[in-house]
Amino acid sequence: MRSLQGRLDLCSINTATLGHREPLDVTIDRIARAGFGGIAPWRHEVEQADVKQIARQIRAHGLTVTGYCRSTYIPATTRAGFDANIAANRAALRDAAILDARAFVMVVGALPDDSRDLRGAREQIAEGIGLLHETARDCGVPLALEPLHPMYAAERSAINTIAQALAICTDIDPHADGFLGIAVDAYHCWWDPALLESIGAAGRDKRIRAFHVCDWLRDTRDMLLDRGMMGDGVIELAALRAAVERAGYDGLIEVEIFSKDNWWRRDPADVLDICAQRLPSVC
Amino acid sequence: MRSLQGRLDLCSINTATLGHREPLDVTIDRIARAGFGGIAPWRHEVEQADVKQIARQIRAHGLTVTGYCRSTYIPATTRAGFDANIAANRAALRDAAILDARAFVMVVGALPDDSRDLRGAREQIAEGIGLLHETARDCGVPLALEPLHPMYAAERSAINTIAQALAICTDIDPHADGFLGIAVDAYHCWWDPALLESIGAAGRDKRIRAFHVCDWLRDTRDMLLDRGMMGDGVIELAALRAAVERAGYDGLIEVEIFSKDNWWRRDPADVLDICAQRLPSVC
Repeated sequence: MRSLQGRLDLCSINTATLGHREPLDVTIDRIARAGFGGIAPWRHEVEQADVKQIARQIRAHGLTVTGYCRSTYIPATTRAGFDANIAANRAALRDAAILDARAFVMVVGALPDDSRDLRGAREQIAEGIGLLHETARDCGVPLALEPLHPMYAAERSAINTIAQALAICTDIDPHADGFLGIAVDAYHCWWDPALLESIGAAGRDKRIRAFHVCDWLRDTRDMLLDRGMMGDGVIELAALRAAVERAGYDGLIEVEIFSKDNWWRRDPADVLDICAQRLPSVC
Repeated sequence: MRSLQGRLDLCSINTATLGHREPLDVTIDRIARAGFGGIAPWRHEVEQADVKQIARQIRAHGLTVTGYCRSTYIPATTRAGFDANIAANRAALRDAAILDARAFVMVVGALPDDSRDLRGAREQIAEGIGLLHETARDCGVPLALEPLHPMYAAERSAINTIAQALAICTDIDPHADGFLGIAVDAYHCWWDPALLESIGAAGRDKRIRAFHVCDWLRDTRDMLLDRGMMGDGVIELAALRAAVERAGYDGLIEVEIFSKDNWWRRDPADVLDICAQRLPSVC
């Protein structure tokens, strides 16, 4: 496993970690000034700015875009809705290419309004990924399917384990052309009894396109916005990174913390300082 | 699949559904008077009463005890703590026998205080189940390992999928002697991409010892105490029951709803009425 001591160049900050309280250009400067090697911006930030200008600013700092967040949910109640979702994702993939993103992060969606048809949603998701895989190849930006914690299976993602994501990858892209893989996020998968086995399987086809860290707090108070800083929770992050790197992942380690009542209330510079301390000591 | 129309005798109420607001003897009478065929009481209710008296009252009503809730968590930071947890579970199993419970519901626990060693916790859990399996056989009460939703993996249960629970069963009890099985709870497992396959596997060894229903609400506000009434959420309960019964389960359907801000504030008689309406129409 790589040492992260003095290697913030191997570390990336997902802009959600700072709570999206400042304009993206300010955030980019902050992250670069703090010495991080990468950034993962969100579409709502990029789309309200000039994507080419953002791309230039990121490039000027020498930052790697470790992921572009995130896909429009795929499943819809109508075919027209599904098609619109695919079109929105294609547009985002073109922006991801302009940003030279290492991955387009796919949070795939789940049950459309009033639906209980989880299998149907998963079928739409698989079909949509198949369509977007072609676009990803054309754009030169890999898709990273991010399995989300099962507590998001109703509303955010019906892909909930690494094994499930890999099965979709193998179906759609049996020869592993490099444009369909997964994002391993510690928060979503730490509990999985098949975790190490699944990461090993992901390695065999070089599917790991992103690695996200934060921590699971024992007394989690909000299902969406109460993630912990690395070291403040229960995840064995160093062991997880070791497994991911044994599986061939050589990209950056990205910090992604949603924390409405804690980290999003702190000074952004302090948050970055603490990330910089915790990454080498905990991850 | 059995019809539940006019068959409340096939349905059971877990006393938690009524919020534990009344003494157990009142709750037993209520559930019997409403026409349900079964009840699943909790230890904290039974242990503060006279277990033999409770057993007599339940028997007089002709109620089946579909499960006795629930085990003391197994993992501990010290061997003495682990031994004490096993001893507490053995005492509870003796009470389960007095109650003639169809199953002793095992919520197995997870990370002990300050621990991040999930694998170690799972090893303690497997060892503890092995010890308790012997007691279960002696007492004539099957253990029902209940996989809990992965959002409880830190604090309540490090068994989080049916497949994982079955692997433990097979290890400890390869010949399926009838005293080690699982509880399938819709709330905990509905999201699992391997759900139907796992239920099928459970059927091959006749491992399903209990079946619990409630519903997963889209806008779940509390990770522990915001479960929905059947029909108010996203789970395809009838399809799930069909799978469980195809797998050979012929026991009662047990309603278990934790709902601090909704069902636990309503009149208990009304809650039972609505359960009685929803079971045949939704499950």
